[in-house]
Amino acid sequence: MNTKRDTSRDGLRNKVETYVLTHFKPIWNFIQSNNALRKITNKTLINNAVYKIPTRPYAFSTKSPYTSWESLTDRSYSGLHLPPLDWKPLTQKNYIGINLTPAEKFEKNLPPVEDLEALYKKKNGETIYSPKSTLIFPYFVQWFTDSFLRTDRENHLKNISNHQIDLCNVYGLNHTITEMLRSHQGGKLKSQIINGEEYPPFYYDENGQPKEEFKGLPHQVTNEFVNKADSFPPEKRQKLFAMGVEVERANVQIGYVMLNVLALREHNRLCALLAKNYPTWDDERLYHTARNIVMVEFLKIVLEEYINHITPYNFHFFTDPLSFTHEKWYRQNWMTVEFTLVYRWHSMLPDTLIYDGQKIPMPDSMWNNDMIIKKGLGALFEESCSQPAAQLGLFNTPDFLIPTELASVRLGRAAKIRSYNDYREMCKYPRVTDFNQISSNENVQKELKRLYGHVDNIELYVGLYAEDLRKNSALPPLVGRLIGIDAFSQALTNPLLAENIFNPETFSPVGWEEIQNTKTLSQLVHRNIPQTGKQYRVSFYREGWQPVS
Amino acid sequence: MNTKRDTSRDGLRNKVETYVLTHFKPIWNFIQSNNALRKITNKTLINNAVYKIPTRPYAFSTKSPYTSWESLTDRSYSGLHLPPLDWKPLTQKNYIGINLTPAEKFEKNLPPVEDLEALYKKKNGETIYSPKSTLIFPYFVQWFTDSFLRTDRENHLKNISNHQIDLCNVYGLNHTITEMLRSHQGGKLKSQIINGEEYPPFYYDENGQPKEEFKGLPHQVTNEFVNKADSFPPEKRQKLFAMGVEVERANVQIGYVMLNVLALREHNRLCALLAKNYPTWDDERLYHTARNIVMVEFLKIVLEEYINHITPYNFHFFTDPLSFTHEKWYRQNWMTVEFTLVYRWHSMLPDTLIYDGQKIPMPDSMWNNDMIIKKGLGALFEESCSQPAAQLGLFNTPDFLIPTELASVRLGRAAKIRSYNDYREMCKYPRVTDFNQISSNENVQKELKRLYGHVDNIELYVGLYAEDLRKNSALPPLVGRLIGIDAFSQALTNPLLAENIFNPETFSPVGWEEIQNTKTLSQLVHRNIPQTGKQYRVSFYREGWQPVS
Repeated sequence: MNTKRDTSRDGLRNKVETYVLTHFKPIWNFIQSNNALRKITNKTLINNAVYKIPTRPYAFSTKSPYTSWESLTDRSYSGLHLPPLDWKPLTQKNYIGINLTPAEKFEKNLPPVEDLEALYKKKNGETIYSPKSTLIFPYFVQWFTDSFLRTDRENHLKNISNHQIDLCNVYGLNHTITEMLRSHQGGKLKSQIINGEEYPPFYYDENGQPKEEFKGLPHQVTNEFVNKADSFPPEKRQKLFAMGVEVERANVQIGYVMLNVLALREHNRLCALLAKNYPTWDDERLYHTARNIVMVEFLKIVLEEYINHITPYNFHFFTDPLSFTHEKWYRQNWMTVEFTLVYRWHSMLPDTLIYDGQKIPMPDSMWNNDMIIKKGLGALFEESCSQPAAQLGLFNTPDFLIPTELASVRLGRAAKIRSYNDYREMCKYPRVTDFNQISSNENVQKELKRLYGHVDNIELYVGLYAEDLRKNSALPPLVGRLIGIDAFSQALTNPLLAENIFNPETFSPVGWEEIQNTKTLSQLVHRNIPQTGKQYRVSFYREGWQPVS
Repeated sequence: MNTKRDTSRDGLRNKVETYVLTHFKPIWNFIQSNNALRKITNKTLINNAVYKIPTRPYAFSTKSPYTSWESLTDRSYSGLHLPPLDWKPLTQKNYIGINLTPAEKFEKNLPPVEDLEALYKKKNGETIYSPKSTLIFPYFVQWFTDSFLRTDRENHLKNISNHQIDLCNVYGLNHTITEMLRSHQGGKLKSQIINGEEYPPFYYDENGQPKEEFKGLPHQVTNEFVNKADSFPPEKRQKLFAMGVEVERANVQIGYVMLNVLALREHNRLCALLAKNYPTWDDERLYHTARNIVMVEFLKIVLEEYINHITPYNFHFFTDPLSFTHEKWYRQNWMTVEFTLVYRWHSMLPDTLIYDGQKIPMPDSMWNNDMIIKKGLGALFEESCSQPAAQLGLFNTPDFLIPTELASVRLGRAAKIRSYNDYREMCKYPRVTDFNQISSNENVQKELKRLYGHVDNIELYVGLYAEDLRKNSALPPLVGRLIGIDAFSQALTNPLLAENIFNPETFSPVGWEEIQNTKTLSQLVHRNIPQTGKQYRVSFYREGWQPVS
């Protein structure tokens, strides 16, 4: 079923870059043993990733197919890396030198969205598992991206986030919500203790009514504009937590809730630590400083543990934000539609998961906080890390998420996103000329050919996940490249990481020390569970995983 | 009354810079005759101005005396270049190397605000006139700064603007207001023709009631939270225009209204021009493209005609935004409290003005649009340009604006702004050690000494305007330096001037041509008055003004 992929359109420079970064391990080890060399290499490689395409500000957003003051300033609309299909150029046929696929012909040739179901459905119902990643990996990705890739449910072209990794899922999307979640004592967030562990408060009171104190917390409306949470069975409903985003979203799945609970515990732990060291501080100061610290701790996990897991490189990136102060890409964040499309990893969620040693259907883990409460956070993290994620790609989406895949295709079309080949060219990959240059999987080749006829007709969302994964990588190449661009350039510009701010004065000397001592999710987990001395295995990597040479 | 000022604390580098820039005219002329040389000099001098102090993002805002996620992201609070007086440092006694004046002592030594009236009141009621600037100069400054220095009347620590030169006074502070002002036909703003000239529509209907279509236009509340406009005498009230900001603010004085009317006419003129050239465009496209063009035309006037008027240099700055794409100061705008304080040029407004050949009190020109309608825009511009502005400085504020000066002092204190000497040090001026280093005017020296006792006790707002004007300049040195920093770094980062946006594709080839052909206010005026062939004199410079050598 698998043939050798035709690599003639991979691009010489891309091939060389990947080869160098995935070979010569002794040289990379030497580089990493020398602090100055490591720093300069980190900077060079990150810049090399980000400068593949033009930097912000973008000329286009989903506001209009031309540039206006509103399109340049209203960040409720998503940004666009390439002009939309309905752009009518006045002076130039191409954009930033890209020989764009003619728009009208492209749109006319798109297959009906429903026909694409065939691309996502599993072959013989079989799940392909990732050899590299554990289930905590897609859990983490869904959770942290939800703070900045927040599609407006009423207008999918809009983003209701603050365009930052601001942990709004923990702290609230805005000041009003934040106020509801704060205890206003000692800087802490409201919480409750169950079975000796700390959790957010429940959203509903004993009579099944939203608690007075949380009135105003947003709801995720369903298509029928009814609050989903109100229709849950009572036993699930009663255990929904009050957190920073829509009630339904914040409680969507145990993975999301586990990470939110972890962040809440770390916040409250830091408040106690700060209060002890700075006894004159009031609730406000404690709250804000603890939040600063928690945000940077998670930024470090994203920029180190997470990024190094997704890449197959022998060099390990590290958090050195002050190296980028002078970069041209250091501009105000603006999340793009393309960025939301490269972060839809529905196929990484298997059909089933192991819970308490038993195989259960994935949907059973949705809106089901009892699964966390009963097992406890440490043991649940360990169990999530002892089972594989599914592999990212076509023919591997669980049935219950196929409508979500099709919704993503529809979003790409509504946003008038250009062709897969246009984005390849933008990202410095040669345009493909044959289906066998995209994937080695004959089924993928055959289905793409049947649906699109010609490679120029492939739409971005489909092309992205049709590509073969890179060797030892969690991601296919174009997804990886687009993530590199947006992730680095938007995470490293977080104001907490800026010159004159990223220092012990902002975080307090005690908080600065905590930041220095935080590099992994495992550390965060072990700080925030009952201190029995037990060590749980918490890792994005499957046990025993080794890169294939 | 004037002695020689002690220049020993001016700073060697500052002296050399000023000397070089104000001498060697033949060399500067040679530089400006060569395009490449002119470009590189423009870039070097602007960078030299901006890099005097640390670049954005600022560690502090008026939100709190420490750094929080909210203080770093909530731009409704004003930025701060230096930490506020109530900052309690954890790790460092000084900030960015500045030896800050001890805060408690400083605040304790401040004289009562009312006592400062003596600093502003004219000596023997006499106005000192500017040898350089015409009355249109302060008119223009008040108008264009009002789009980004918009102090919230209910909380003076906040700024209700969008932090951009976005001509919100013409187009509205937000989308809802914009919609009220647009005719939704041919891209034009609503307008009316009186005496053959175009004006905005009146806000009140014939019965003295706000027109239905303008309900929701903001009002400027007075201290008693009553809309000021409702209390105007009917003959003034009936002529108030509906424009982009608070009704009272938009109509405040003929200077403000003249410039708003000019921008409106230019917008509607461009709409007609674009419609002729791009007949397929709808109202939306025409509106947005005309707005893009008008904004850049005014940005050019600010960056060329205006900036070159305030400086005494032999080199003339010009608009070359793409040269700065790589600069570290190219960061998201955030207006500072300090910037609002350096733009309070109340003393430049004389007690009286000449209108129709008659001397009238300045307050008569407030909320008095009939003065414009009766005379017509061209003739009124010419008359405003044939009389001098008053000179910026102490002992020169008209009586009716003295309460505004004292309010500015109070704002500086409420925002916990550091001392004048701290800001000198931040701006690379040596701290003064004696009153005669600030001003050559013995009255100024004497009054400062009486009120403050020691130069270290002088507060920023007072020190700024106590300094002697630089020779041939419209501004005193510290004001000039702070304006250079904030003006260049915030105007040149306007997204319309960014790479991939500042091009004919964004503005249309026809609009791009209009932008190239716009360098002066005079050009704008003559395009937008009845075409009788008459040339009016429109200039920031007084007739016959020559630099003193």
